[in-house]
Parts: sequence; C-alpha cells; structure tokens
Amino acid sequence: MLKLYGFDVSNYYNMIKLALALKGIDYEPVMTYPNQTPEYLAISPTGKVPALQTEHGVLVETNVILEYLDEVAPEKPLYPTNPFERAQVKELVKLIELYIELPARRCHTEAFWGVPVDDLTKKEVKRALFNGAQALARAAEFSPYVAGDSLTAADIMLLYTMDLAVPVAKKLFDVDLYEHAPGSKALIAQLKEMPEVQQIEKDKRAAAPAFNAYLKKAFSGK
Amino acid sequence: MLKLYGFDVSNYYNMIKLALALKGIDYEPVMTYPNQTPEYLAISPTGKVPALQTEHGVLVETNVILEYLDEVAPEKPLYPTNPFERAQVKELVKLIELYIELPARRCHTEAFWGVPVDDLTKKEVKRALFNGAQALARAAEFSPYVAGDSLTAADIMLLYTMDLAVPVAKKLFDVDLYEHAPGSKALIAQLKEMPEVQQIEKDKRAAAPAFNAYLKKAFSGK
Repeated sequence: MLKLYGFDVSNYYNMIKLALALKGIDYEPVMTYPNQTPEYLAISPTGKVPALQTEHGVLVETNVILEYLDEVAPEKPLYPTNPFERAQVKELVKLIELYIELPARRCHTEAFWGVPVDDLTKKEVKRALFNGAQALARAAEFSPYVAGDSLTAADIMLLYTMDLAVPVAKKLFDVDLYEHAPGSKALIAQLKEMPEVQQIEKDKRAAAPAFNAYLKKAFSGK
Repeated sequence: MLKLYGFDVSNYYNMIKLALALKGIDYEPVMTYPNQTPEYLAISPTGKVPALQTEHGVLVETNVILEYLDEVAPEKPLYPTNPFERAQVKELVKLIELYIELPARRCHTEAFWGVPVDDLTKKEVKRALFNGAQALARAAEFSPYVAGDSLTAADIMLLYTMDLAVPVAKKLFDVDLYEHAPGSKALIAQLKEMPEVQQIEKDKRAAAPAFNAYLKKAFSGK
C-alpha cells in the first residue's frame, strides 16, 4: 500500500490527499513534519513533505506525485489525455506554484505565526504575488475550472495555494488577491463544497493544535 | 513549424534548443528578451522566455515544454517510458530548478553584471544553494547521467543550471558547488563535448555582446 509522509495542516500534503480521495486510492498516512534527520533525508532528499512511498520507491514534489498518480490510476483523471492540453494543465500548475505559492510562503511566518519578515522580503513578495496573480489571470480559463470545464490538478494546486496566499496578501499588504485573478474566488467557493475537500479541512482543523504547539517550540528554540 | 521565443544567452532557452537539436526538430527562433509588452504578454503570461508556439497554441515553462516535445517527438527520448522512472526524472529536473537554478538566479545581477545584491538575499541564497546541492547529491545517480545510464531532461536542466549557479557560488561565496554534488563536474564536462552543446555555446558567445549592451542600457535606465 502507498505510504504518504506529511501532516494534515500542510497545504502541499493536502493536495495529494485530495487527489488520492478523488481517485479512491487507499494509502497509509505517516505523520511527519519536515525535518533534516538522516532517516527522513533518506526518504525525502530535501527533508520536505509530502513524500509518497510506492512499491517502486519514493517520490517527492507534489506536481510530480500528482502526475504519477494520474498515470497509474487514470480513473477520475486530473490531467487531459491530449498532449497539448495536458501540457497546458502542467503549465497552470507550475504558474500557480512558482509565482503565487512559493512567494507567499516566504511570508508565512509573519502572516500566520507572528514571526516578522524583513521589509525587503515583503516588498519582493508583494510584487511577486501581484505579478503571479496577473499571469494566472492571463493563462487560466476559470470556466469554471482553471483549465476549462473539467477539474484538473491545476484546481487542486489553486485551492491549496490560495488558502494561504490570500491571507498573506490580505494581512501583510491589504490586497485582495482574488480580485487580480477574476473567477478564482467563485471557483474556490465551489471547490470547498466538495465533500473530499471538506473532510480534508476537518482533518486540518483537528491537526492544527499539535502543529501550533510544535511550531511554538521550534520558534522559541531559535 | 514551431516558433521558439527567447535569446541565445538564456540558459532556459538553451535547454529547449538542446532538446530540439537532439531530437532533430526544425523550428523558427524568434529573438525575444523577457518583456512586459501587451503583445508578448499575450504570448507568454509571465513575459518570460522561452515560449514555444505550436500548431495548437503557446506553451511556457521549460520543463513543461521539454515533456511536451518528448510526447510529440518520442525519438531520442528525454524521459523514460516507465511511469515511476519518468516521475523520478521529473523530480530531478524540479529539484535542480527549484533548489539550485532559482536561488542562484537571485544573485545573477551581482555575479554577472556588477549590480550588487543585498546581504540578506546573499545569505539566503548561499544556504539554499548548499541545501540544494546536498539534495541533488542524495537524489541523483551520476552514473554517469543524473538519472542513471541514459541522458534525460535532468541532464539538460543540470547543464544549463550549473553553467550559472557554479560561478554564482564561486564568485559570491567562494564555494565550489560541484564538490557538494560529486559526479556533477565530470558529467558536465562530458555533456560539454556533445556537438549540439558546443553549437549552442557558440551561438551564446555570438549573442553575448548584444545582450550585454541591452542589459547595460536597462540597468542605467533604472
């Protein structure tokens, strides 16, 4: 059986959880916070989560895992079969991750845990998020899904990216990121009505206290 | 015919050039520096290069283009056909890009064009490059290629990533990045003997003066 390393508060972990739930694939969750122990680095070369243990070996990087799952379990597809359309979905996934998720992540400590981020980083992130949302607006369909009329991996990436990037933009820059990517707000409201998404949100809330206690300890230990 | 937007000094552009050369695919190059004109933003949603115009529409993001080319022109494959092995190559491509190429890029202005980067950024990049090279060392085979005994897209990403990341690490941090990913130096020396790589290097040298003049004007205009 597949083993999925990660924790229920992680937005990347939840992308894989949602894909597995939609496809009805059983797996064993292995509660793991990102760490640099030799044991975990032998599983995940960066020490990050999620990591997926398959019968052939371990895979890391969320989009890679999503594409792999779609190949070995093609029911409830998350990518189109046509090569150009599949490339377009991969492109959208990457635009969302590289130009929205990752910049917003640089400000998570201030937005969520009260640990200030320096002004230079904030300035860079503000511009990056603005540019990223504009690029997404140019590339995405939002009709109603990111890539058109079917749910794809790009919707999964968007859902769990905006879940953190929108509050970062709001709290730190007083910017409504949804406004820069018209259609994204309505789509996310729709995605949040899916029972699989609601279950993941429930798991996340249940796991939050333990994660917050872990973080508090980590930050005070600095 | 395919149209490839970009310029001969761009390392990402050269990744696509190499893939096209290896596969023997004809294309029309369209000399383009990254820009934010409405005309180019209608082609490339971020304004970056490369962008590949196909008969179906435009694709951006180098790894997405590489995977697409491999699907529509499977001769001289750059990815394995086995789903798990293909995922491993995609993972390696992403590790190299996300944890070596992109951090190094934040210091390009100082390393190559004499435009200083602030100390905070340098500190972050130094740590990121060290971690990235360690992660690559854990994940890669270097036997002799990144993913084993065949050349893949991961070798293309490594070649044109190290081409810029190694001098960044050397000039700014006095660190030999190759030493942190044993096997990478010998592999790159081997890749540089390929005639296709040598032609791309020749094109790059020929295009450098115009690019330098363009940059000089861009930086002085700030």
